[in-house]
Amino acid sequence: MTAKRIKVAYIGGGSKNWARWLIRDLAYENSFFGEFKLYDLDYESAVDNATLANMIYARQDVVGKHHFEAKQTLKETLNGVDFVIISILPGGFEEMRSDVHTPEKYGIYQSVGDTTGPGGILRAMRTIPIYKRFALAIKEYCPNAWVINYTNPMSMCVKALYEVFPAIKALGCCHEVFGTQKLLAKALYNQTGIEIPREEVKVSVSGINHFTWITKAEYQENDIFECYRKMVEDNYESGYDLTGTTDLDNNPFACLHKVKFDLFKRYGAIAAAGDRHLAEFCPGGWYLKNPDKVKEWKFNLTTVDYRIKESNALMKATKDFITGKEEFVLTPSGEEGVKILKAISGLGDLVSNCNLPNHGQMYGVEEGTIVETNAIFSADSVKPVVSGKLSGQILALVNRVAIAQTEVVRAILDEDYDRVFNCFVNDPLVTISLDQAKELFLDMIENTKHLIPRSEEYLKENGR
Amino acid sequence: MTAKRIKVAYIGGGSKNWARWLIRDLAYENSFFGEFKLYDLDYESAVDNATLANMIYARQDVVGKHHFEAKQTLKETLNGVDFVIISILPGGFEEMRSDVHTPEKYGIYQSVGDTTGPGGILRAMRTIPIYKRFALAIKEYCPNAWVINYTNPMSMCVKALYEVFPAIKALGCCHEVFGTQKLLAKALYNQTGIEIPREEVKVSVSGINHFTWITKAEYQENDIFECYRKMVEDNYESGYDLTGTTDLDNNPFACLHKVKFDLFKRYGAIAAAGDRHLAEFCPGGWYLKNPDKVKEWKFNLTTVDYRIKESNALMKATKDFITGKEEFVLTPSGEEGVKILKAISGLGDLVSNCNLPNHGQMYGVEEGTIVETNAIFSADSVKPVVSGKLSGQILALVNRVAIAQTEVVRAILDEDYDRVFNCFVNDPLVTISLDQAKELFLDMIENTKHLIPRSEEYLKENGR
Amino acid sequence: MTAKRIKVAYIGGGSKNWARWLIRDLAYENSFFGEFKLYDLDYESAVDNATLANMIYARQDVVGKHHFEAKQTLKETLNGVDFVIISILPGGFEEMRSDVHTPEKYGIYQSVGDTTGPGGILRAMRTIPIYKRFALAIKEYCPNAWVINYTNPMSMCVKALYEVFPAIKALGCCHEVFGTQKLLAKALYNQTGIEIPREEVKVSVSGINHFTWITKAEYQENDIFECYRKMVEDNYESGYDLTGTTDLDNNPFACLHKVKFDLFKRYGAIAAAGDRHLAEFCPGGWYLKNPDKVKEWKFNLTTVDYRIKESNALMKATKDFITGKEEFVLTPSGEEGVKILKAISGLGDLVSNCNLPNHGQMYGVEEGTIVETNAIFSADSVKPVVSGKLSGQILALVNRVAIAQTEVVRAILDEDYDRVFNCFVNDPLVTISLDQAKELFLDMIENTKHLIPRSEEYLKENGR
Amino acid sequence: MTAKRIKVAYIGGGSKNWARWLIRDLAYENSFFGEFKLYDLDYESAVDNATLANMIYARQDVVGKHHFEAKQTLKETLNGVDFVIISILPGGFEEMRSDVHTPEKYGIYQSVGDTTGPGGILRAMRTIPIYKRFALAIKEYCPNAWVINYTNPMSMCVKALYEVFPAIKALGCCHEVFGTQKLLAKALYNQTGIEIPREEVKVSVSGINHFTWITKAEYQENDIFECYRKMVEDNYESGYDLTGTTDLDNNPFACLHKVKFDLFKRYGAIAAAGDRHLAEFCPGGWYLKNPDKVKEWKFNLTTVDYRIKESNALMKATKDFITGKEEFVLTPSGEEGVKILKAISGLGDLVSNCNLPNHGQMYGVEEGTIVETNAIFSADSVKPVVSGKLSGQILALVNRVAIAQTEVVRAILDEDYDRVFNCFVNDPLVTISLDQAKELFLDMIENTKHLIPRSEEYLKENGR
Repeated sequence: MTAKRIKVAYIGGGSKNWARWLIRDLAYENSFFGEFKLYDLDYESAVDNATLANMIYARQDVVGKHHFEAKQTLKETLNGVDFVIISILPGGFEEMRSDVHTPEKYGIYQSVGDTTGPGGILRAMRTIPIYKRFALAIKEYCPNAWVINYTNPMSMCVKALYEVFPAIKALGCCHEVFGTQKLLAKALYNQTGIEIPREEVKVSVSGINHFTWITKAEYQENDIFECYRKMVEDNYESGYDLTGTTDLDNNPFACLHKVKFDLFKRYGAIAAAGDRHLAEFCPGGWYLKNPDKVKEWKFNLTTVDYRIKESNALMKATKDFITGKEEFVLTPSGEEGVKILKAISGLGDLVSNCNLPNHGQMYGVEEGTIVETNAIFSADSVKPVVSGKLSGQILALVNRVAIAQTEVVRAILDEDYDRVFNCFVNDPLVTISLDQAKELFLDMIENTKHLIPRSEEYLKENGR
Repeated sequence: MTAKRIKVAYIGGGSKNWARWLIRDLAYENSFFGEFKLYDLDYESAVDNATLANMIYARQDVVGKHHFEAKQTLKETLNGVDFVIISILPGGFEEMRSDVHTPEKYGIYQSVGDTTGPGGILRAMRTIPIYKRFALAIKEYCPNAWVINYTNPMSMCVKALYEVFPAIKALGCCHEVFGTQKLLAKALYNQTGIEIPREEVKVSVSGINHFTWITKAEYQENDIFECYRKMVEDNYESGYDLTGTTDLDNNPFACLHKVKFDLFKRYGAIAAAGDRHLAEFCPGGWYLKNPDKVKEWKFNLTTVDYRIKESNALMKATKDFITGKEEFVLTPSGEEGVKILKAISGLGDLVSNCNLPNHGQMYGVEEGTIVETNAIFSADSVKPVVSGKLSGQILALVNRVAIAQTEVVRAILDEDYDRVFNCFVNDPLVTISLDQAKELFLDMIENTKHLIPRSEEYLKENGR
Repeated sequence: MTAKRIKVAYIGGGSKNWARWLIRDLAYENSFFGEFKLYDLDYESAVDNATLANMIYARQDVVGKHHFEAKQTLKETLNGVDFVIISILPGGFEEMRSDVHTPEKYGIYQSVGDTTGPGGILRAMRTIPIYKRFALAIKEYCPNAWVINYTNPMSMCVKALYEVFPAIKALGCCHEVFGTQKLLAKALYNQTGIEIPREEVKVSVSGINHFTWITKAEYQENDIFECYRKMVEDNYESGYDLTGTTDLDNNPFACLHKVKFDLFKRYGAIAAAGDRHLAEFCPGGWYLKNPDKVKEWKFNLTTVDYRIKESNALMKATKDFITGKEEFVLTPSGEEGVKILKAISGLGDLVSNCNLPNHGQMYGVEEGTIVETNAIFSADSVKPVVSGKLSGQILALVNRVAIAQTEVVRAILDEDYDRVFNCFVNDPLVTISLDQAKELFLDMIENTKHLIPRSEEYLKENGR
Repeated sequence: MTAKRIKVAYIGGGSKNWARWLIRDLAYENSFFGEFKLYDLDYESAVDNATLANMIYARQDVVGKHHFEAKQTLKETLNGVDFVIISILPGGFEEMRSDVHTPEKYGIYQSVGDTTGPGGILRAMRTIPIYKRFALAIKEYCPNAWVINYTNPMSMCVKALYEVFPAIKALGCCHEVFGTQKLLAKALYNQTGIEIPREEVKVSVSGINHFTWITKAEYQENDIFECYRKMVEDNYESGYDLTGTTDLDNNPFACLHKVKFDLFKRYGAIAAAGDRHLAEFCPGGWYLKNPDKVKEWKFNLTTVDYRIKESNALMKATKDFITGKEEFVLTPSGEEGVKILKAISGLGDLVSNCNLPNHGQMYGVEEGTIVETNAIFSADSVKPVVSGKLSGQILALVNRVAIAQTEVVRAILDEDYDRVFNCFVNDPLVTISLDQAKELFLDMIENTKHLIPRSEEYLKENGR
């Protein structure tokens, strides 16, 4: 029997992170044969990724045999595919710099700036118009394809796809929960000596992307929730170094889980994302009041300079691999993208968390809101699993942002930026005055106006 | 035919405001004969109110003939009644002083401090245990009576009654919408010259108490919403003096509606309460950042000293009336309490706004949340009217507080003050750090601990 | 002040019943001046009605002054109007004969045949395509007009309008509840001697058109529900002659309320429609097993011959009035159409029952289903009132038909008659075999095929 | 590492079918060690089953090592267990005879008579009082245990458990879907030659027990739904003999799937249960009009005589095994009970269908109704999966019975048999007159009155 043939469009196929992870994991996968078409505004990067991928699959020692090719139009890319993967960078680092750092001038600090808060909202303002185009193209060229989104702001991107093309089969995938599973596996090990991979930590998540919650964690007869309680008790003040090599000083993505521990202590449930994400969903005075406070809670503010450095390194690495200067060392990425392609293609079921419109899986959050819960992935099917009820105090935190996300998406699609501002100024991180918030909002639009439709007009209306 | 006999228990019957208004309005009402039993911790005040009331109904020129009597136990008061009115002051002015002014030390300013924000939550912590007792007593002595609440925090008091005795027939009544109707009547007059009483301004409200919204206002063929838009345009900067004698400098309850105008300009709907209430539901940086900001928006922070002065004056006045020193000048109060007693007694229908658990009348807010919408009052029946959908941006503001209110009530009934604190620190007005917020919370509990169950234990657990 | 001017389109303006009632009631109404444009496939009847109306308003003794005019196109009729009234006869008496009498050949008896059951469904199959046209025309020519429907099948007609034009402001009005209020007024009188007009019987209805239920009925301190219980106890066997002149033998619309009494005895709630309507919503074996059973329950099967006779009489009467042969004797009709025009025009509020999509007013029935509950009619506003919960046993009866109605409307709009048949064969009255039911369905389509789109093709597919 | 120890109470542990299957499957299972306590009114049967089980696990060739023991009280049985399995026969064969055959005197034929229809309702009337006792005992002795029900009427038994003890962790398991998966596997094989076990047929079910629906069926890239369509087309008239040895004449449980094919043809979805179950949820005229009609549709009416014969054979077999007369030949049963024990014990996840209260997993059916959908079984967790929307025409069929089931359970718990009768007489199979239905209902109560609380009184009230 020949392997199943799967056709995949990759929008943002020049991506350094997600595309690279995919290329690596495919090397281990021979239950199907994949044809990947890469599309990117930066065509050269897409070509490089394709070249790299094809080089790898040509290796004798590599079992996965797939084909990659860069394409120059959305039409060519999407035509006839079974899947669409999207991971784009909306704009470049200068726009990201504005998202992350402009609010600092007003005393608002963000640890990520791409999901929620001022940075997340502005990023949405330039991403959603692009996603509108994607949704319309998918509707035209491959309406039955499964669409897997990795771009942030995750919930708003997925919501935009459904608003524009309600019959789309889109879902959002994110690895933040995996990290928490690793921490839980460690908590189990610490208490019992039992060592398991993170996939074996059985959790049911409930919440919105980057702000999901776990109310139960088990492994066989072991109650990992209680192990975690012990971990929190013992390390509440110090934090916990999961890898043993966490370098808070030099790695802006690092954290010692103190925010997570504090949320557990106060709310009795496990917040399942990195601390730098969690902090952004909480009122600004809690964990992100100022850089000192962030230090106190032992996580970091990501700087755009660091991201640029990182990106350049990845770009150079790709070139080095292609030109043969460096050997590409293969290891599995720990991501689940390939497993998801497999499962939806009918090659083995998978239970994992993902982001979908709420149709009953999450209690207390409005129908249609993009929520993150578990789902069963099987042949041509992704079915969300009904998650347990969150307590009212957690729902209050989650809904505050969830309601705003839906409204922001709709307001952006309507190009009604006053409505966007009303959500902006009610965001947990925006604790400044109305006037200052308006100035900040306008500054951020001004900085990125070439990527925001009707921005000139809006700025003029507001005296800029 | 003899007039219908209605038996009414009044808990908080020594009340200076609400009881006085009721006594006045009853003087004009002879379609029924009311027997009122007044219960108050301050028995003397109840006796004084009863004496005053009976003196009035004895007057020749007064058509309403009713009977008032002070009672010393809840049992005697509630036994056999058709209605229960509740308007209590939970604690005294010193507790209110703590609610209103303690947060100022942490930079949090409140214009009322009895509904939401730190003051509202602390007030709930000492009111809800009392309401639990009321609900149980009503269940025992008069389970079929209609219960009309006037005490703040309104939504939380009503919610507590339903949590403790789910079959209770309770509703919350408030006059804040009436004030907005007056403003709308004026807007109509300004544009058209048509003069109508506020009851003729047809509105459907949707929201939570002190933070309801109007999306349509009509009088016959006149679109009052558009008249109001003109009023806002013309007076956005200056504000609008509705009575022509508004004395911002000396009357802390006064306002020039600038907050209301700003909300209209930004949200496209009419917020229907006094500005000092509206401001408290908005993020702290908007209208209550500091006393200067409040001045800028042309409303006032209510001081407790003013309330004490006012209360003393009312107390003295009652005494003066009773002893004959002063003549009691009768005028209708503008309140609807008597109309509601009448309507529920089957003596004529009424459509007005009131606070009830959501059973479909308000879209986008969880089942069971106490919401304020219109209702039809008729014989033994109060049926909420389905209100229009609010826009997502308004729902985001409303739900933020609404979700917390339900949770706060449940947490207080569970005596779980950590859960209360989690809502406290997510309140729109609490924009300070976690640590400071915890200090404030503990200070406020300490100040009022004699009225909060389990407070000593909780303070001790938290190092006080 | 000059009276308000209201523009009304009347589709089906040649109507004998509803148009006549409207013309009569307008004669008493001078708070507005109405311009009515009548549209009817039978243009002459429209002209006759206009002539008659204008003759009446010209009379000295008539206070209402309005203008009627027949129009020849939908466009002219709808352009610029504030209201659209629709009361049409879809097809003529021969089609109605098929609806009512064809099922009798298969042992299925219907007392009305225009609402539910085989007759109701077939009538829907020829009415809904027409309503689709109406909805599109309203969307084009007068999208802001209020649309008042009187045509049966009521719920399905209203549903069709909303399916085709979701933003339509349509409602369905029906007088069946009024008749039950009269019976309740009589029950009150019998027990207490108190005589009141039916409007004073305060009820909140809950259900679907022609199958609504009342769980409470009050007049001031009087519990009419208990009076009714007594009426049922005393007259369960005999039935009750409300008018004292009920002529079961000659008036096919007459009944002695035995079905209503039986439903009360068995379900503990008051079914609020004529017995001939109620019977059709119940399983066929209950009240409509055969003509003898109908006789036993003391109501009648309406015959189409009777309807033809009645119609001819009305037509002749109109002619006689126009030609002056007969004098038109004015009396109020008891209908509420004119009150509704007034209330929505802002000339005084009204609380009455009407049919609207469920948006929270009725518990246990899916969102969007057309339900009949109370509503408040005021300036440019019709807001449904939240009705009480029905017991599960009643909801089971109601939902059985309600779910089917929504499905039938959608299937007809899709021209998918197999789906219609699946509902047809699950109808309470259709207790015959699948094969027979299919024959009946095809017979009924065949009889009326000139009015059903795609009917020829469907018949052919099914071997006809 | 020693195997996990699991304690299980088996109520109805003398059961011939379910207990036997369990005993067989445990023989293959050594990932845990189970202690089973059997409780049965027929203590001797429980002892026999325990003896048989222990004999099997003592065999050298058997890998599963477990311990069985009969207990004489519920208290001893339930104390300290992790699981409770319930499979009881409420009453004996004489009661079942009344359920199945009494309605035949009134022309109502049932193919099973234990789930829905007159038989199912009467069976509920004697089962639910027993389940009330079980629920209270579980609440007292093992409130955290997982409860797995196999008794019919499945949905009503599970509902009763939740009504009496809302915090219970109960689910209902049934193998009817498995049979349909086998048919689908065969359809796949017929079209493609691919042979797979039934577990590999990926389906998401949606409905109520014995009346669930499948709208999609896949195996890898193969659309089994389309294979099934072909099977239906080719075998619509003849039916399909799945096993090749189907003996319609002698096996009353046999069928040729013609009912299933007809439902597919008419509704476009796969009804997933045996034909004899499906037929009972459809209006009586469809497939169960009379014995000839049943023959036409190629399934059978189960007779109680057959069941008695079968039961006696099983009883004798058990004795023969115990006494060593016969050797017990081990084969896996095909049931999933053991897999479920394993999965909930954390020994490997399972996705399968089960019956749970609706908390979002099924669209269009009221919250709390017992529905059958897929669920994920993992450590101490059973989470339902959100199933796809059923079309309105199918929901109409499903809801008709689903609404009644909830109401019947509540009415039985209230001992309000008039409400039960109102559901009885609205059942799809009850197409007879009200009077006859009442006689039938009373007959059936009379036949089984020793097992129905308050039955004597009810019969007397109704003139018996």
